[in-house]
Amino acid sequence: MSRPTPLSGFPEWLPRQRAVELHVLDRLRRTFELYGFASLETRAVEPMDQLLRKGETSKEVYVLRRLQEVAQGADAGLGLHFDLTVPFARFVLENAGRLHFPFRRYQIQKVWRGERPQEGRYREFLQADIDVVDRDALPFHYEVELPLVIGDALGGLPLGQEAGTLPVVIQVNNRKVCEGFYRGLGLTDTEAALRAVDKLDKIGPAKVAGLLTATAGATDAQARACLALAEISSADGSFVDRVRALRVVDPLLDEGLAELAQVMEAAAAHAPGLCRAELKIARGLDYYTGTVYETQLRGYERFGSICSGGRYDNLASAGADRYPGVGLSIGVTRMLGLLFGAGALTASREVPTAVLVALADEGARGACQRTAAALRGRGIATEVAPSAAKFGRQIRFAQRRGIPFVWFPGADGEPDTVKDIRSGAQDAADAATWQPPAADLRPEVLAP
Amino acid sequence: MSRPTPLSGFPEWLPRQRAVELHVLDRLRRTFELYGFASLETRAVEPMDQLLRKGETSKEVYVLRRLQEVAQGADAGLGLHFDLTVPFARFVLENAGRLHFPFRRYQIQKVWRGERPQEGRYREFLQADIDVVDRDALPFHYEVELPLVIGDALGGLPLGQEAGTLPVVIQVNNRKVCEGFYRGLGLTDTEAALRAVDKLDKIGPAKVAGLLTATAGATDAQARACLALAEISSADGSFVDRVRALRVVDPLLDEGLAELAQVMEAAAAHAPGLCRAELKIARGLDYYTGTVYETQLRGYERFGSICSGGRYDNLASAGADRYPGVGLSIGVTRMLGLLFGAGALTASREVPTAVLVALADEGARGACQRTAAALRGRGIATEVAPSAAKFGRQIRFAQRRGIPFVWFPGADGEPDTVKDIRSGAQDAADAATWQPPAADLRPEVLAP
Repeated sequence: MSRPTPLSGFPEWLPRQRAVELHVLDRLRRTFELYGFASLETRAVEPMDQLLRKGETSKEVYVLRRLQEVAQGADAGLGLHFDLTVPFARFVLENAGRLHFPFRRYQIQKVWRGERPQEGRYREFLQADIDVVDRDALPFHYEVELPLVIGDALGGLPLGQEAGTLPVVIQVNNRKVCEGFYRGLGLTDTEAALRAVDKLDKIGPAKVAGLLTATAGATDAQARACLALAEISSADGSFVDRVRALRVVDPLLDEGLAELAQVMEAAAAHAPGLCRAELKIARGLDYYTGTVYETQLRGYERFGSICSGGRYDNLASAGADRYPGVGLSIGVTRMLGLLFGAGALTASREVPTAVLVALADEGARGACQRTAAALRGRGIATEVAPSAAKFGRQIRFAQRRGIPFVWFPGADGEPDTVKDIRSGAQDAADAATWQPPAADLRPEVLAP
Repeated sequence: MSRPTPLSGFPEWLPRQRAVELHVLDRLRRTFELYGFASLETRAVEPMDQLLRKGETSKEVYVLRRLQEVAQGADAGLGLHFDLTVPFARFVLENAGRLHFPFRRYQIQKVWRGERPQEGRYREFLQADIDVVDRDALPFHYEVELPLVIGDALGGLPLGQEAGTLPVVIQVNNRKVCEGFYRGLGLTDTEAALRAVDKLDKIGPAKVAGLLTATAGATDAQARACLALAEISSADGSFVDRVRALRVVDPLLDEGLAELAQVMEAAAAHAPGLCRAELKIARGLDYYTGTVYETQLRGYERFGSICSGGRYDNLASAGADRYPGVGLSIGVTRMLGLLFGAGALTASREVPTAVLVALADEGARGACQRTAAALRGRGIATEVAPSAAKFGRQIRFAQRRGIPFVWFPGADGEPDTVKDIRSGAQDAADAATWQPPAADLRPEVLAP
């Protein structure tokens, strides 16, 4: 077999990068569980008719066939899921009678999209989603709570931000603000207006104005008003007065402004600086009906949003049953791929091992394994050296992997000693009681 | 949308089952890391030519195509991996220059096989693998260590076994014993003999004898000797004398017996009862060259092996570089699916939540969220009630999910109280200091 080469769009992390990813995933999971979200995994495949319900993403689906079926030309009718929202909506409908509502779940899984690969865009990538769905009606307060969960979950990323500053900013808007405003302006095709404004960052205000005229039937004055709304941005509740100053009146606009103000107020109390009202945020997907979210990494705003979502009312319904929800999805692979590419994150070591037990001769392996077992029994990850090489070589084995401690069994009744190979300090130690510093127990994630 | 139905062969767990799975996976991961195995994930897809290298599994591969390519009839040349061994071997070859050997990794991922679904056999399932690979040569002692890791990892399963008894038995054999024995008998096609003996449990000794004659060129006496070897089974080192009594002499047989005796001796010292020498264990795959393992759940032997593997020398090689290894693979979905089907395992609750904060009126939500945040800050998973319903209804909300505690904010300067809804006991409590019993902090896994 010749040496294989990577597949474009299918990233794989080396052990040290994977250690960073695991640390991030552990923190996400721990936070989600502290808020009462239950873990859920759905199968990787969905029937093609489910996946193609929303025409715009159809081109990205990977279709699956069993090898024999390919030969026969038959179609398995299955494809790989391209997000976790569609499978979650299907799971809720399928199991509604066996779930308790409101249902809070987190879901951390790979998804696949057959898009052209480019920086920060993959064909296989990991998403971490939280959603709350309820039966019939979903109280608004979940739209307030969910960004706080994300703030706690991503709050520990060591991105070199100033002390006391969160590494993320969640940009918040509310569909009711936009739709109410457009309606109050006299525009009837509010969806077309939203789609035009959604392109603001990509094509700029002049072209968006043109689109508003061409696709949403806006006059020049209406287009200017839409752009004025999209310019409004504030770190506090002052956005309300700025919208009022545009003198558009609509009951849906009032409702949206009140909701958005509540999100901003709760976020300011929970984690100052976490949220920002950003009235240009539209989100491409048409199923959002209330609050919408996008998330930027401080200092890496050029990456775009690494965590997005919103309130939806019509995603999961069967007959008369409706399951409205609100959710956010973290693009874990996208975020880490960009941070790795920028050299922004690494791990203190590439193995879980905290201690390497040195081996004087192969006959001592049994005794060394018992020493290792004693350390493991107290939660200290330990390996025994692979061979009875010279001690210098065994120490280099530890150094290359970042293992901080080497344990030397005492010869002839001498006590064992343990050496911190970073400082060189070597002390007598008992495997039944010795404890490494807490920071050395597991790999740490840090800015290099 | 009509209510969706399950897809045969693609299992999905309900939240309480998923809580069991998470608990098992946490224990596996924790154990693997204590032994210094680093986490690794590989992409879900491999080039078809990689997946089809071993002809026997080709029919099980799921082929992937992007939707447009299907329309064009083009072939993407990619398929979903059907195990974690082939991708791991590919990863090692691809990244050999960036890994440190011996390389210990664990890998917990879904795999896919387009087989006909039946009880305990799935089209999508989770595997948990550990392997140690080295460059050029792999010391034998890893073949001794790996079953001990599996014993520790699966040792905590509460399967109702007697106190002090492990829930699993690892059946061990060594390819060198079989091949040496067959060679010493005068058989030249030892692979054919191995394939015949591998069918013993399925077709019985008479038919195996027939196969040995027909496919391995054995005489009746040679076939009887092969079956006599396969009958040998012992919980200690006594298998050696029983093999010697068959009076077959071969240096490879001697080597194999010595190795198998070492595995048995180390296992007896580490975890009495964990391993059993079982000389009929052959393992279907032809790449094993030393120790082979199969694992049974005590009391559920009818399930067959839930964790198998062995030593391999020729799986990963490119040009002159060889990477021999030894590994074991736990069929997590298979094991849990069978245990769930037998009603053998459940979780104490279906949510991570330990405390529900009751809500007297919607205006108190902010204060309740602060109470929840104080509890979460000390590692206690907490939710605030979804609405200010009557307290009886809020308590039923907790009961239905298995949440053990309901927290009642004190009215008018009264202290808060917390109620254990199982016992009904209700006591004054302070969110800054109150701690639930350790067993209530997370869902517990138990026999129902």
